[in-house]
Amino acid sequence: MKIARFETKGKIRYGSVENGIIDMIEGDIFGSHTLTGIKYDIKGVRLLAPVAPPNIIAIGLNYRKHAAESSMKPPERPVIFVKTTNSIIGPADNIRIPEIAPGEVDYEAELTIVIGKTAKNISEQDAAEYILGYTCGNDVSARDCQLKLDAQWARGKSFDTFCPIGPYIVTDIPDPDSLSIKSRLNGKTVQESNTSDMIFPVRHLVSFCSKNMTLYPGTIIMTGTPEGVGFARKPPLFMKSGDTIEIEIEKIGILMNKVL
Amino acid sequence: MKIARFETKGKIRYGSVENGIIDMIEGDIFGSHTLTGIKYDIKGVRLLAPVAPPNIIAIGLNYRKHAAESSMKPPERPVIFVKTTNSIIGPADNIRIPEIAPGEVDYEAELTIVIGKTAKNISEQDAAEYILGYTCGNDVSARDCQLKLDAQWARGKSFDTFCPIGPYIVTDIPDPDSLSIKSRLNGKTVQESNTSDMIFPVRHLVSFCSKNMTLYPGTIIMTGTPEGVGFARKPPLFMKSGDTIEIEIEKIGILMNKVL
Repeated sequence: MKIARFETKGKIRYGSVENGIIDMIEGDIFGSHTLTGIKYDIKGVRLLAPVAPPNIIAIGLNYRKHAAESSMKPPERPVIFVKTTNSIIGPADNIRIPEIAPGEVDYEAELTIVIGKTAKNISEQDAAEYILGYTCGNDVSARDCQLKLDAQWARGKSFDTFCPIGPYIVTDIPDPDSLSIKSRLNGKTVQESNTSDMIFPVRHLVSFCSKNMTLYPGTIIMTGTPEGVGFARKPPLFMKSGDTIEIEIEKIGILMNKVL
Repeated sequence: MKIARFETKGKIRYGSVENGIIDMIEGDIFGSHTLTGIKYDIKGVRLLAPVAPPNIIAIGLNYRKHAAESSMKPPERPVIFVKTTNSIIGPADNIRIPEIAPGEVDYEAELTIVIGKTAKNISEQDAAEYILGYTCGNDVSARDCQLKLDAQWARGKSFDTFCPIGPYIVTDIPDPDSLSIKSRLNGKTVQESNTSDMIFPVRHLVSFCSKNMTLYPGTIIMTGTPEGVGFARKPPLFMKSGDTIEIEIEKIGILMNKVL
């Protein structure tokens, strides 16, 4: 199933998407719910971020080649950082260059896990049961704040609009650890890899995070980005007003956002 | 006013506390609300964390003497990090030593700001309007994770129960930048300072944070801790099962939690 969250007539709804038509869901997508048969053309509604997460957990340096391009050693355990929830936007929203950090706004394509039920101290073997599905994420980062001004990454990663996710939550992904993942800036491919390059695969991340913190339903875990980010390029390539950035993940879809 | 959040007969309520009696509040504490005149003895209810924050923003190294004891230079701008919301507990709850990081669990007394209305790009002059009030906070930290294993602080600061706050939100604090602040471990004073030692005072922090991220109502900003934390002591002093830790801030109250 592909789960969309959308707004129509001022109300926020969930629905199941097939062939451009949304079948409205009634109930709790994390609990009991049914399809209503009430249908909307996807072009007639405003798509929102497919989930409003209670917490955004992000994993740093989780692709071998990205750790290398960042001149960092592959980490011994997942590098956890946190983005604040004001950063969330959906596929219909724009990334805004922050007034106080306009110069080094970078993209990061990330496979994004959506937790389906409360997870605490979960083993790797059981982790899949706690995953509702996957979506595309863009861990937008102000590199000047993240890497030059601050030692902690939280501020440079938490500006408003710095966490686009979407377009849908896709629930049927039997092997999340072998999906092609790409980003395109103004149509030109800038990242091109496969989740098989991840140092810590999806189930390991869910298990590890759940041993450090209770994961509530709707929590997202952004699983790290592959090589090709802007700050590591020569010359560096940052996003600017007027740009379009797309994140494409195999079997999941394309998340496109404009930059204002 | 002192605002308590409490549970009675399975329902979560807010109330105004005076002389051990809670007068139940009806409405939205961030919007229009009134006192109902329905009263509870504070001993007959379960006090909860006085707010369920959408985001927990914390400031590192914000007291001159704590920066010194941590062998860190005073920062040029506020050091922002983020704790996940699973860490929140109230005055009736216990701090739990995490299974995977039991050895170096430290206390940090912190004046905690509760944001009252949506704040974005607010000036220091206007900041007070956006503050609902203040409470006591304990930024509990697993120092092995925070300082030895990880470069990012988020994990060591985000274990379940690692963010006790309370007992109340106190709304009438005209000068938050000159309050005595203390912590006591098993009755013995371990931190004793004054918020006047803060490098960045309260209104500066609210303004700075609001320029980096939209602060929603209920967001808390933990303003940093004074000297005397456990890891900087010789020998180090960490919390263990059976301990009691108290945070006391002048005009605000005492937050006491047991350690399990």
